[in-house]
Amino acid sequence: MEQLKTWQNLKISMLLTGSELIDGRLRDSNSFFVAKFLFDRGQRLERIMVCDDKHADIVDSLKVLATKSDIIITSGGLGPTTGDKTREAIASFLGVELHSDEDSLERIKKFFRDRNRPYTSNNDKQALIPESGAVLHNSFGTAACFSAPFNTERESKGILFALPGVPRELENLIPEQVLPAVAAYFSLGDIESISPCLHKLRIFGLGESTIGSRVVESKPGNQVEVSYRASFPEVQVLFRGIDKDVTQEQVETVAAKACGLIGHDCIFSNGNDLSLVEVVSSLLHETSTTIALAESCTGGMLGELLTCRAGSSEYFLGSIVTYSNKLKADLLGVSPMDLEKYGAVSAEVAVSMARQARIKASAKLAVSITGIAGPSGGSQEKPVGTCFLAIADSQGELSCKIFFPGSRQRVREYASYAALELVRRRLLNIPIVEPVFLESNLRVATGIISN
Amino acid sequence: MEQLKTWQNLKISMLLTGSELIDGRLRDSNSFFVAKFLFDRGQRLERIMVCDDKHADIVDSLKVLATKSDIIITSGGLGPTTGDKTREAIASFLGVELHSDEDSLERIKKFFRDRNRPYTSNNDKQALIPESGAVLHNSFGTAACFSAPFNTERESKGILFALPGVPRELENLIPEQVLPAVAAYFSLGDIESISPCLHKLRIFGLGESTIGSRVVESKPGNQVEVSYRASFPEVQVLFRGIDKDVTQEQVETVAAKACGLIGHDCIFSNGNDLSLVEVVSSLLHETSTTIALAESCTGGMLGELLTCRAGSSEYFLGSIVTYSNKLKADLLGVSPMDLEKYGAVSAEVAVSMARQARIKASAKLAVSITGIAGPSGGSQEKPVGTCFLAIADSQGELSCKIFFPGSRQRVREYASYAALELVRRRLLNIPIVEPVFLESNLRVATGIISN
Repeated sequence: MEQLKTWQNLKISMLLTGSELIDGRLRDSNSFFVAKFLFDRGQRLERIMVCDDKHADIVDSLKVLATKSDIIITSGGLGPTTGDKTREAIASFLGVELHSDEDSLERIKKFFRDRNRPYTSNNDKQALIPESGAVLHNSFGTAACFSAPFNTERESKGILFALPGVPRELENLIPEQVLPAVAAYFSLGDIESISPCLHKLRIFGLGESTIGSRVVESKPGNQVEVSYRASFPEVQVLFRGIDKDVTQEQVETVAAKACGLIGHDCIFSNGNDLSLVEVVSSLLHETSTTIALAESCTGGMLGELLTCRAGSSEYFLGSIVTYSNKLKADLLGVSPMDLEKYGAVSAEVAVSMARQARIKASAKLAVSITGIAGPSGGSQEKPVGTCFLAIADSQGELSCKIFFPGSRQRVREYASYAALELVRRRLLNIPIVEPVFLESNLRVATGIISN
Repeated sequence: MEQLKTWQNLKISMLLTGSELIDGRLRDSNSFFVAKFLFDRGQRLERIMVCDDKHADIVDSLKVLATKSDIIITSGGLGPTTGDKTREAIASFLGVELHSDEDSLERIKKFFRDRNRPYTSNNDKQALIPESGAVLHNSFGTAACFSAPFNTERESKGILFALPGVPRELENLIPEQVLPAVAAYFSLGDIESISPCLHKLRIFGLGESTIGSRVVESKPGNQVEVSYRASFPEVQVLFRGIDKDVTQEQVETVAAKACGLIGHDCIFSNGNDLSLVEVVSSLLHETSTTIALAESCTGGMLGELLTCRAGSSEYFLGSIVTYSNKLKADLLGVSPMDLEKYGAVSAEVAVSMARQARIKASAKLAVSITGIAGPSGGSQEKPVGTCFLAIADSQGELSCKIFFPGSRQRVREYASYAALELVRRRLLNIPIVEPVFLESNLRVATGIISN
């Protein structure tokens, strides 16, 4: 007897086709997108297959997936070239013929006319869809996409979606066309209406295993599922109701208990899913705080992060990247004696860099980074991964030490994020303490300007 | 009858296991690494499958792959947790028992002893291998990896490799353990000795389709295969002999003909596979040229790029990131009248920024970027994507305009690469002309210092 289909028990698989995916020319992002998209809605991908764009390989892969899946999403091979074989292979798999969809053909021709580009007949094939298929409207590309029913080789019917390999097109089609078509085909409600409630934490400064053990300690119970995504240098924790009957309030209660044990200070985003750059940018904007930087080992990375969002000119004034000691002295005005006495990687020099950057840029706040990114240059006292940060504002100056052992690039990334975190904590009056910040030290204001 | 196995006709598939891969927590990089690694040696992956870390799913996937493959490489699920199921599933698939490998167990215990960490018995399972298996030496991790023969369900035998999911461990095991074991199992020579000859070009400033049509025009013939990898903002072209009988000289002759039509000026790496940052860094090092930057819309990105390699302090002095106009005037000394008259995004301001950065940092050479990264701020005359670059050295000052329509981040990346390309061309006396550089303009030296 056929089992009643629900969003929860639907088995969804993907087939990615294209020689570029199996010879290392392209790293797939489509299956990653779909996996994340479904997971956030209480669903998960069942299986992913990747094969060459050969007729036999595609047919064969579809047959394997058909035994395991109610829904198959293919990605790639819908273009106009002879290498694009997905339409023909799907028709073979379904045992039907392809026919030209008139509306799609007209739309493709219009696309060329609108751009004053000559239409060539190899594009005709982009309008071919299986006789049993239905066109999906692709807002961002020429290729006609389609859905078509198939036999699962069990006692039920499945539905297949043929989508383009271009990420922008696929990422638009999944919510706009695929999920509504699935809902209609299996007579289900809107997936959003049955999606479990979610609450996401984003954390900087604690490792995944530490966070994990604290969450376990908070006894989340069996109504809320907890999962982790490490995205260096941050860790995300997802609290998700096991089904739609678990309310947002229940999910948030569990999350709140976990936050208490994780420690609120390290959680830069609690529920609103903002990046650390977004949080700090918003804080600077809301408090009308202008910021200037003095960077050394990060070489400009922190400035790049703080300018990746549009509108950053409202608060970001600039960054003085002084890689050489001479430039630290000449351009920033760090005392050569301090450089000699304490070394360029020291609390004293970090403070001086922040102080001077603040003065030179007439900024309300300045932050500095100086450290040993490696792989060489470390010492017993200051091993590779040691960085000093400092912040200067009208309240005073504060220096702190951080230590992150890792590759050159990771040390730089960690230091840049730590500097953002330092700004966040300063603006929110959160203590600058371990585990992120070691040996922090507040001094009274010595800045010349007052804002 | 069994076909004679050669490197060329071996069918290699991968099975990636782990719920994190199908629920969007992790984007796989292992199959991408293996695909690229094999392709550069004249081989290609046959198929990739991804499944959950469930016993039945893994066994099932292995059965599917066994019908298509001589070699199966699994990745993931060898760790100590209850979620790690690959060992047991492989034993089921092979129809054999697992046994504890004594050497591996001792090695794991030693790993804990050496780090003063208490050994817990759940780690015992990391030493389990199938009775028919052979241990592979894993230099970078605790888990015992292994190979084991399997029946392909055709008239031949295959070999399976169980590797960890940790990229660093897998990337070491493929060349060190897996390929030699394959060679031994199928009585083949060293893969490197039969690898086809390769020649790689790396190009900045020309699109993939333009490069493609010029390569076709150069008539590469049928002895050398040409493929393309777009890795924004550069394009790579791979010339590869169709088999080992095609000599390096033949491949290079074809590549040289193509280079003539592509245009040598845009090819920053011809055969030696260096990134643009590496090429420019080497040039600065070899010519003992110190460099300083003045950045605006890139916010520090160019400085970050030029400091990503160890040893960059030899030539990189610093970057003055002046995002605000006030800082361009106050810190760099750009004339406020010029800012008013020409606008911050202009050839005049770019030249002034480079000139001042060179003077302030006492650098032999300075380069500047000022542009409109968007999404807003464009005008009819200067649309989003318009940037002005300038370079200043003892020979004089040169400004040029570039235009790249795209997202904010892509505009910034393109501009940073264009600035690197500008330095490369200046140091190699290559003309600063289209397609990368529009409206370039050389002025006589007005710098105060002479190096």
